[in-house]
Amino acid sequence: MHNLIKELILPKFSNPLLNKLGDSAVVEFKDRGLAFTCDSFVVYPLFFRGGDIGKLAVCGTINDLVVSGALPLYLSLALIIEEGLDYSLLERVVDSISFASKVSRVKIVTGDIKVVDKGACDKLFINTAGVGKVIRELNLKDIKVGDRIIITGRIAEHGLSILSQRKGMDLDFDIKSDCASLDSLLIPLLKDKAINPAPARRGGIKFMRDPTRGGLATTLNEIARATNLGIVIEEAKIPIANRVKAAGELLGIDPLYIANEGKAVLVVDSEKAQDILKLLRQHPQGRFSQIIGEIRSEPKGMVLLKTTLGTERILDMLSSEPLPRIC
Amino acid sequence: MHNLIKELILPKFSNPLLNKLGDSAVVEFKDRGLAFTCDSFVVYPLFFRGGDIGKLAVCGTINDLVVSGALPLYLSLALIIEEGLDYSLLERVVDSISFASKVSRVKIVTGDIKVVDKGACDKLFINTAGVGKVIRELNLKDIKVGDRIIITGRIAEHGLSILSQRKGMDLDFDIKSDCASLDSLLIPLLKDKAINPAPARRGGIKFMRDPTRGGLATTLNEIARATNLGIVIEEAKIPIANRVKAAGELLGIDPLYIANEGKAVLVVDSEKAQDILKLLRQHPQGRFSQIIGEIRSEPKGMVLLKTTLGTERILDMLSSEPLPRIC
Repeated sequence: MHNLIKELILPKFSNPLLNKLGDSAVVEFKDRGLAFTCDSFVVYPLFFRGGDIGKLAVCGTINDLVVSGALPLYLSLALIIEEGLDYSLLERVVDSISFASKVSRVKIVTGDIKVVDKGACDKLFINTAGVGKVIRELNLKDIKVGDRIIITGRIAEHGLSILSQRKGMDLDFDIKSDCASLDSLLIPLLKDKAINPAPARRGGIKFMRDPTRGGLATTLNEIARATNLGIVIEEAKIPIANRVKAAGELLGIDPLYIANEGKAVLVVDSEKAQDILKLLRQHPQGRFSQIIGEIRSEPKGMVLLKTTLGTERILDMLSSEPLPRIC
Repeated sequence: MHNLIKELILPKFSNPLLNKLGDSAVVEFKDRGLAFTCDSFVVYPLFFRGGDIGKLAVCGTINDLVVSGALPLYLSLALIIEEGLDYSLLERVVDSISFASKVSRVKIVTGDIKVVDKGACDKLFINTAGVGKVIRELNLKDIKVGDRIIITGRIAEHGLSILSQRKGMDLDFDIKSDCASLDSLLIPLLKDKAINPAPARRGGIKFMRDPTRGGLATTLNEIARATNLGIVIEEAKIPIANRVKAAGELLGIDPLYIANEGKAVLVVDSEKAQDILKLLRQHPQGRFSQIIGEIRSEPKGMVLLKTTLGTERILDMLSSEPLPRIC
């Protein structure tokens, strides 16, 4: 264990705050608003087109902080490893964690490793917690009728990438997971004074969320329920790659319910919606951004989908469990 | 999943900061010093004499913060659950988490649940991360020759409790785990101005650590190595219950290397050692506290044990892996 930490972990995350002996990372914190989040990652396969469990863990936690209006600063990293796991595989995951954290300039400051007996876990699970500095308070209560809904890119790529690469599936749609950190796309928007006018802490961007488990439909439903407002979405506006649509059809899975790992749903002031869209599209990660709908007073607490066929239907919450071990 | 969170988790940890929809907990933080820690818990059996995996997870993370000189404030809670796990069992664990967090007045403000397929994990793993406010900066660099080593109670009770209750062991030494939060014992000491004289941030208590994995011997070795000073310990002073000693002998395991989950090792100024010992012993959790040794210039980076037989021997680092899944 000591060697694993010393040889594998410490060299990869060398920063003065990483605790080498103490049990907690003690980090400077000058601001009052602290964002704190956590997630476990149990995805399989561990490596997939577009990412791996390590990248996913870092990006997932960064994204949870970013959509909460916070600048990600510090991460914790806890690994649960099945005895006998190939060391080189573990090293690839750790390299990936290291790389992803450097890209977003977050520091992994504390961690833990547990090795469990063979059969007690499936290869590798990761838990990351994150701490960030709140730069803009986002609040569901600020959402009003007329606000626009933006999605920052094409949907369902993570979930369908994973599914199509599962053992026994033997399908190859060549779908790459969208697994990515959202900080470089969204932090500048949160800081932008033109789109988030004074009073500084209530602005053009009212709420953000990353539509992971349960996909876009679930996130929209959660917003509708929490605000008791209606959301009306136009199917034709939802960005989706053709191959993803085809894969969903073949597998009998609605892409609206499939996890994304590098996208955000934004609820924004209608007057600022075009400006925000323009800024998003200037960024490579946001080039397929779309305004997909808006907040209405009806149907209260529900999501209405205007389909490409010209019909309307209520977009329900997922009635069953979301697909297992997608993230 | 939604029902599980709504019915099982939310009612148990009802506090205004617990995030119900947002991805991160946003918590007020007025002070500069932030402590942040994390741990996974994979112990089996899930329930043992003196505790369970839930209590262990909360106490373990609280203790990591406390021994870092921080007042524990916020915890995250992430559960990895094997599909089909008995709901009532899970509920007992969650109740235990809720109770332990209330006892120490920490708030669980963010969380995650993953359910994995049968066989992908052994019943239940828990990860807790914690955030605390640094109330006293403790630093290995302040440790000097002459400083005393205190242990706050009897050793090896957690590890030997778990081991003796393992399936197939069929042993009953009636050993109760010492699993407990250290905040009520140690926070008052950290705040005490008499034992931590001015300059306020460098005081009588110089360093603390909870000797969990690898036990007392491992913690002492880590301190010796990190400071490159010697530690001399008197075996006769180390508090240990007779039944624990007996169990260790029968199982062929040295209690010095066995995990504790409710004890701390303190390195303290020699002039304040008796005052600190007195304060510790006034608390029910600290009544068996002992000064067990001191810092010397030799043997550099090593721990010397003066045995009850009058001999001396170097107390090595554990050469093999610590016992698996003790915490």
